[in-house]
Amino acid sequence: MSSCLLPENFATTGPYPRLNRRLRLGVVGGGRIASTQSAAARMTECWDIVAGALSSDPAKAQKRGSNWYIEPNRCYASFEEMAREEAKRTDGIDAVMVTTPNHLHFPAAKAFLDEGVAVLCDKPLTNEVEEAQTLVKQVNTRGAVFAVGYAMSCIPMVRQARELVAAGEIGEVNQIHTEFMQDWMMAEGVLDADHVKWRLDPKQSGPTSCTGDIGTHAAHLGSFVSGLPLTHVRADMHVLGAPKALEDTVFISTRHANEIPGTLLATRYASGNRGGLRFRIFGSQGGLEWDLENADYLKLSKFGQPDQIITRGHGHGVSPTVERLVRAGRGFPEGIMEAWANLYLEFAMAIAAARDGITVDQNWGRHPEVTDGLEGVKFINAAVKSHQQDGSWQKV
Amino acid sequence: MSSCLLPENFATTGPYPRLNRRLRLGVVGGGRIASTQSAAARMTECWDIVAGALSSDPAKAQKRGSNWYIEPNRCYASFEEMAREEAKRTDGIDAVMVTTPNHLHFPAAKAFLDEGVAVLCDKPLTNEVEEAQTLVKQVNTRGAVFAVGYAMSCIPMVRQARELVAAGEIGEVNQIHTEFMQDWMMAEGVLDADHVKWRLDPKQSGPTSCTGDIGTHAAHLGSFVSGLPLTHVRADMHVLGAPKALEDTVFISTRHANEIPGTLLATRYASGNRGGLRFRIFGSQGGLEWDLENADYLKLSKFGQPDQIITRGHGHGVSPTVERLVRAGRGFPEGIMEAWANLYLEFAMAIAAARDGITVDQNWGRHPEVTDGLEGVKFINAAVKSHQQDGSWQKV
Amino acid sequence: MSSCLLPENFATTGPYPRLNRRLRLGVVGGGRIASTQSAAARMTECWDIVAGALSSDPAKAQKRGSNWYIEPNRCYASFEEMAREEAKRTDGIDAVMVTTPNHLHFPAAKAFLDEGVAVLCDKPLTNEVEEAQTLVKQVNTRGAVFAVGYAMSCIPMVRQARELVAAGEIGEVNQIHTEFMQDWMMAEGVLDADHVKWRLDPKQSGPTSCTGDIGTHAAHLGSFVSGLPLTHVRADMHVLGAPKALEDTVFISTRHANEIPGTLLATRYASGNRGGLRFRIFGSQGGLEWDLENADYLKLSKFGQPDQIITRGHGHGVSPTVERLVRAGRGFPEGIMEAWANLYLEFAMAIAAARDGITVDQNWGRHPEVTDGLEGVKFINAAVKSHQQDGSWQKV
Amino acid sequence: MSSCLLPENFATTGPYPRLNRRLRLGVVGGGRIASTQSAAARMTECWDIVAGALSSDPAKAQKRGSNWYIEPNRCYASFEEMAREEAKRTDGIDAVMVTTPNHLHFPAAKAFLDEGVAVLCDKPLTNEVEEAQTLVKQVNTRGAVFAVGYAMSCIPMVRQARELVAAGEIGEVNQIHTEFMQDWMMAEGVLDADHVKWRLDPKQSGPTSCTGDIGTHAAHLGSFVSGLPLTHVRADMHVLGAPKALEDTVFISTRHANEIPGTLLATRYASGNRGGLRFRIFGSQGGLEWDLENADYLKLSKFGQPDQIITRGHGHGVSPTVERLVRAGRGFPEGIMEAWANLYLEFAMAIAAARDGITVDQNWGRHPEVTDGLEGVKFINAAVKSHQQDGSWQKV
Repeated sequence: MSSCLLPENFATTGPYPRLNRRLRLGVVGGGRIASTQSAAARMTECWDIVAGALSSDPAKAQKRGSNWYIEPNRCYASFEEMAREEAKRTDGIDAVMVTTPNHLHFPAAKAFLDEGVAVLCDKPLTNEVEEAQTLVKQVNTRGAVFAVGYAMSCIPMVRQARELVAAGEIGEVNQIHTEFMQDWMMAEGVLDADHVKWRLDPKQSGPTSCTGDIGTHAAHLGSFVSGLPLTHVRADMHVLGAPKALEDTVFISTRHANEIPGTLLATRYASGNRGGLRFRIFGSQGGLEWDLENADYLKLSKFGQPDQIITRGHGHGVSPTVERLVRAGRGFPEGIMEAWANLYLEFAMAIAAARDGITVDQNWGRHPEVTDGLEGVKFINAAVKSHQQDGSWQKV
Repeated sequence: MSSCLLPENFATTGPYPRLNRRLRLGVVGGGRIASTQSAAARMTECWDIVAGALSSDPAKAQKRGSNWYIEPNRCYASFEEMAREEAKRTDGIDAVMVTTPNHLHFPAAKAFLDEGVAVLCDKPLTNEVEEAQTLVKQVNTRGAVFAVGYAMSCIPMVRQARELVAAGEIGEVNQIHTEFMQDWMMAEGVLDADHVKWRLDPKQSGPTSCTGDIGTHAAHLGSFVSGLPLTHVRADMHVLGAPKALEDTVFISTRHANEIPGTLLATRYASGNRGGLRFRIFGSQGGLEWDLENADYLKLSKFGQPDQIITRGHGHGVSPTVERLVRAGRGFPEGIMEAWANLYLEFAMAIAAARDGITVDQNWGRHPEVTDGLEGVKFINAAVKSHQQDGSWQKV
Repeated sequence: MSSCLLPENFATTGPYPRLNRRLRLGVVGGGRIASTQSAAARMTECWDIVAGALSSDPAKAQKRGSNWYIEPNRCYASFEEMAREEAKRTDGIDAVMVTTPNHLHFPAAKAFLDEGVAVLCDKPLTNEVEEAQTLVKQVNTRGAVFAVGYAMSCIPMVRQARELVAAGEIGEVNQIHTEFMQDWMMAEGVLDADHVKWRLDPKQSGPTSCTGDIGTHAAHLGSFVSGLPLTHVRADMHVLGAPKALEDTVFISTRHANEIPGTLLATRYASGNRGGLRFRIFGSQGGLEWDLENADYLKLSKFGQPDQIITRGHGHGVSPTVERLVRAGRGFPEGIMEAWANLYLEFAMAIAAARDGITVDQNWGRHPEVTDGLEGVKFINAAVKSHQQDGSWQKV
Repeated sequence: MSSCLLPENFATTGPYPRLNRRLRLGVVGGGRIASTQSAAARMTECWDIVAGALSSDPAKAQKRGSNWYIEPNRCYASFEEMAREEAKRTDGIDAVMVTTPNHLHFPAAKAFLDEGVAVLCDKPLTNEVEEAQTLVKQVNTRGAVFAVGYAMSCIPMVRQARELVAAGEIGEVNQIHTEFMQDWMMAEGVLDADHVKWRLDPKQSGPTSCTGDIGTHAAHLGSFVSGLPLTHVRADMHVLGAPKALEDTVFISTRHANEIPGTLLATRYASGNRGGLRFRIFGSQGGLEWDLENADYLKLSKFGQPDQIITRGHGHGVSPTVERLVRAGRGFPEGIMEAWANLYLEFAMAIAAARDGITVDQNWGRHPEVTDGLEGVKFINAAVKSHQQDGSWQKV
């Protein structure tokens, strides 16, 4: 039994990473995002969920584990124990997902890296720049496989946009606008919910709330799609809803490489915006616009021609490297679960490639990496500094 | 280990069906739709894929099986053998998906029903009305669990529409328009592809091609959402593309129960329509419009008020029975994979409920049933008769 | 003083029709549509409103006339008087708009044609086919200028669609779907309003209500854009709202020239559809879709490429003959008033061309003509026959 | 003859301004915007165009005047002469439109104000704050009627948005985002066109180009709709296209009254954005979003309910004061010409009201006034200062 991770019809040259069994995944953190990711991982056919540290309360940990049919003796009450015990097993986990509150990302990721387990860690990667740098160093030293949960960068139309920019379809990029507009924090009583409380507690969430939780997605997409890293920010942070310890809204002026200017907005108080992660990238010959709320469609403007609406579906101007990420038939919608599944597929591919000593072309496998995670932490850090210093420009 | 199939936060009264292990699924037919369904089934956490009859060529069957990590001795070269052998095992399959060409739906479904295995069969259920009636009888006699692959009826906004009609939100329904517009058959050379050839061969596809393959989805949604069965049709069939043995396009005038009039279009030559399954249902006080190409949004008009755009997301007028079907967080898109996953979830729930002797409320579990399949076959049959008799009205 | 009716930047070859004064327009009928048209006529700079037969009640006629600042002695109480008296004046009207209830279209149009006055008559042109044929004959015999109020055919994106079909951009047309979905008749009490009552009275409205009033717009666009006249219809008429003497809804199967099949829907009970005049025309290589509710946008699909969204605005693939019809700057929206203004501009151009003995190229001036009006009346007539004969096919 | 300027069905209490003849309008400046405005003015039935200073070249002035059928002796070669000569006539102009390059707005407006002629002046009102203040003083002193060309504030859905905010429908406003994204300046050779050259010349355009020309529209709408004046800005100006003397792009952080934060973007290099004037205004209970490119639709979110799409059309939740501005029937689109017509209608109403000593309620007549113009000039001025001082906050 073995499965090629790059479908044969797309793979025109070899060699390609293969798996001869499903990979074994462990879960740290037991909330909704863990459910989403485990469902997505299973969807890929590459992963089984076999271990978990799902709560520090052992009874809860067992109960949650049973929902995933995890063997009782692999339902751990701490990630340290899980890292240690799984490392001893011959059938121990190949990889772990970390979906805890932010302040635990670093120790959890580090614990598994230390045991040689591949890690997929949620964003923001860490709460401190130094922690993120430590992880980068560790990954580089060990040649470890490490992914960060910027799942939206695995949506087919986001990849298509990136390839179009790289191919020069919009000319030289000259402005980059991104935003993540949500409204869920307007709901009555939501601030008292457990999965929200930690996001407003600086000890757990880190120096920001909205900026680190959703602003970082916008920042990542802006750089990822344009190919131009974020270099400077000027931040204007706000608490628009009920008083709270951390900002719920941030407006940022940006500079990307080559001094390309832009803006970035993030807020949880924009009524009618449920998943409003958007980018608009303009260049000397055209522009690209995308909105997570209509994620299957990408607007491409080539100045002087009618606008084009690109969507998934073989043979309509979509790159094969993008088409490969599409599961559903032509015209059938896909969503965020498929984006996570793409991330888990590329994560599996990276593990298989590392084992087989194969290098996968960046267009065929480009999951968000530990360095993307570090960039995100630096962005958050610079935004905080700018806000504290009356909106001065700060280097990312 | 056990898992409640109705999330506790939604389940306000009991008892509820539970599983204490994942169900074991077998696959008959090895094409793309089988991959879609198996990925969706795995996504639910309720299913493992453990057996398959994926090709009549034993070598191919083994190769395909290995992609799903199916044990070699459970990769069968015929569904008859699979039904027989799996029935002998103590860890035999609980259910089978049938995704063969149409003419094999009946014998395959029957073979597994005979062995007491639950069946999820693709549409059209059968090529002959009598065959479908035989299956209905068999299901009723044995109290078997049987589902039909009308996956789009498991999309949250379709369910929401159905509940709104039932609640009288648009008043008395007075017209029903449905359509499924595609364009993939315009692609050069596509008629020669294996997965297309059988669809144009009357021996395999049955008396229609487009009508049975996609028209039947439109017919099902019209009845399912409105609550009004289709009673009469008047059909106008066409071959718009290259000459072929079966129609590629059909325009139908309809009557639903209570003599409610409507129309139904299905075609594979509507350029720019990739997955254009749509319904528009109007009543004395309002209307509902939905399009698979933007499946997360449902337009509700209440005459005299601004139009409403309903989307998934807790607490915005979406019924809890619909909210339960949503996997992703508020505002994140979902697609056809999630619709299939919903079907597999409700299918699992029906199996668990049957085992536990529990009756699940129709709003909490309403997968497309064998009788929906029969209605589809009758619809196809009536359309053919009408077309042969110069567009006369025919009873469904 | 003189004004070139084809802007010089577009007019590359000559000669072109010119006006050396504004044309004088009279109004027959005094409802809302007359206000719309007179405002649109004035917008063109080509027309002044100078006479009217705005009511059979002389006091009302005076009062209404004063709203348009028409001289009291040119506010007539009958169109017969107006035709007679205006003909005597040296500054008599050059043209008349007829916006009465349907049954008066024929006598009014005829009265002015008899006096040598150009006519712009609302649709349906007449209630009887023979009447329409009489007008066609009269126009042809006298070389009169005659326009029919199919204003939507003067919307830039409709013209663009027509040119794209003619240029072969979608290949050979193979299906044509049109519809006009409205909902205003759902309003409480609306059936008792004066401007509605006559529309439901066979003596005034003619043999149909919805079919003649809005279905005829859909029929015209289908033929106008595709270049393929409607040849056969099969009609299914309904009264969906309160009981009434004439249908409020009609569903039609169609054949255009070359046996091209299609469908046509018209209804006033489709809640949430305010001005839903739409066409979808598909061909062997592409498709075109347009909706009056978003009239500035035209979807062009070329199979195998991303969809294109064409909009007004110089230099983006829009034909100069279409661009000429655009009044507002790039990106500014235009509406139905501008469509009427385009009709009045082309009507003026036809008058000027006739006076100067110039022939204007059809792409530069193609207002809906008396023959378009006749086709509409034949369409209505055939639909009625089909409905009376149980949905049989009838020749248009 | 007399015409009531507030339709009787809307006017529930009196007295109302009336006209007993059309008002006489003069035109200063002869470009495309003058054509747009004169067509719009004529559309209202309230205005005739009778005089013009359309070029400083007398021959050109005559030729342009003849397009509007202006008498040769009322085609002036300078606005000073026009103001002087028209004042002497008993049938002199009632009002003048000023559509010259920016630097002439002040002297032209002043010249006519001095003669007691009502003025409708394009934006930015003037190039210097002091000039705008002079005009405000003059208007106040004389009780003159003065309008500024913020026509987009006369679009029905913009008015509806303003009334919804005022009625508390979105709760307390907490963030305001506006933008005007265009792309026409990307066209090859366009910088050399006469109507563009002056916009890039500081002597004519004033201290900014993009900010004053289109940014000021965004600024006006943000304040107008929210009811919260702009108080502070922090500006980031750019030349994204070919080198030029003035900015073509500006990104601004804003504060409105009550320290409400927001952002404002304006650019002419956003490919695929033709008329992208947009606002998004969010409050404690809901939000409003609008886009000039789909000007007939307004999105209203009430948190906890489905989004609402408000459009023109009697009886669907649209205020009568807004409905009054709608010319076309239910569901028929309207555009920028109708917006200008609304401005000219309210301008006429203000003139009639002033003559009759009547005060019109602000909801029934609220054309953009000289004080709106002053606010715009202050906004431009503050943005320039901020940009020059490295993005510091500046008071408007």
